[in-house]
Amino acid sequence: MAPIDFWYSIGSTYSYLTVMRLADVAKRTGATFNWRPFNVRHVMTLQNNIPFKDKPVKTAYMWRDIARRAERFGLTPRLPAPYPLPGLVLANQVATLGVEEGWCETYTREAYRLWFEMDEPAGQEPNLTLAITHAGADPARVLSEARGPRIEDKLQRETENAMRLGIFGSPTFAVGDEIFWGDDRLDDAIDWARRTA
Amino acid sequence: MAPIDFWYSIGSTYSYLTVMRLADVAKRTGATFNWRPFNVRHVMTLQNNIPFKDKPVKTAYMWRDIARRAERFGLTPRLPAPYPLPGLVLANQVATLGVEEGWCETYTREAYRLWFEMDEPAGQEPNLTLAITHAGADPARVLSEARGPRIEDKLQRETENAMRLGIFGSPTFAVGDEIFWGDDRLDDAIDWARRTA
Repeated sequence: MAPIDFWYSIGSTYSYLTVMRLADVAKRTGATFNWRPFNVRHVMTLQNNIPFKDKPVKTAYMWRDIARRAERFGLTPRLPAPYPLPGLVLANQVATLGVEEGWCETYTREAYRLWFEMDEPAGQEPNLTLAITHAGADPARVLSEARGPRIEDKLQRETENAMRLGIFGSPTFAVGDEIFWGDDRLDDAIDWARRTA
Repeated sequence: MAPIDFWYSIGSTYSYLTVMRLADVAKRTGATFNWRPFNVRHVMTLQNNIPFKDKPVKTAYMWRDIARRAERFGLTPRLPAPYPLPGLVLANQVATLGVEEGWCETYTREAYRLWFEMDEPAGQEPNLTLAITHAGADPARVLSEARGPRIEDKLQRETENAMRLGIFGSPTFAVGDEIFWGDDRLDDAIDWARRTA
């Protein structure tokens, strides 16, 4: 089966559903996922794609839909979670460093768990320190490095890579050039990866 | 199983997937669907919810996604279909009259088939005459009545009923007050209807 790039931003609400179940899905299906954090807010601002701001009816539906889907996956969020995230960029800079050092997935899952299940927004304290520590890294060193120009540039380059693929939202699954947007397209992406074996 | 209201607008692209397969789904699952045409453009304009206009990247994805989903359902559209539809309101006024007279479903399916598979936009000629005739009604009488104030008001009232339920897009499936937006939530709606038996 072809590997699947899992493009996501910490800050996306629907990505909670993917982040929390992806390890189980990988085990069950044999799919392999490369976690690729990017800055979805930058993409959406550039493309004038504003799904929820000033759209109370659609926003209310989004939370209800996430609640129902979470129940189906055995997840227990407290909804609505704090939204939007002021610390979106920093949360994803930390994830970007985590990719290099091998703890991105563990950090991201804990950051989402604290955000969606404990009311502690990702990208700010105490979420940052708790999630980085949970992932086995040193918060002071990580936060200093994640805020630096090297990681800032790397997140920006990954965001440009996502845009080159035609990505406009999070989560998006990519199998080669074929992209699948939304947690609800995860099965379609896995089917595609199987056919691309 | 509780009945499911199928709220839709002829003019919505993703609704093609639902319209073309809903009869098969009903047969296979035992679900019953009430076809409820409304004016989604009115709702989206009111709510400043503009998913595709001036969003070329998201629009390109939408067509690709519909192509893949259509293949999965055994449908053979010619994509992209003409979009948006200048005749959206009239197309749905005809459907509204069709609800009263019992031929809404047949008309809607043929209007979508001609639009998505024959490049003939719904809500204008020759689509109107062909689809109304296919549904067994008289085009001259139907078009005259559908354009009149009584049907105009009825479509507007149905659009207000949709908004009262929190509906903001097409297709939406409603089981009582519980709404499910998108062709990809059809299975969730059927599960909900089963639990609401």
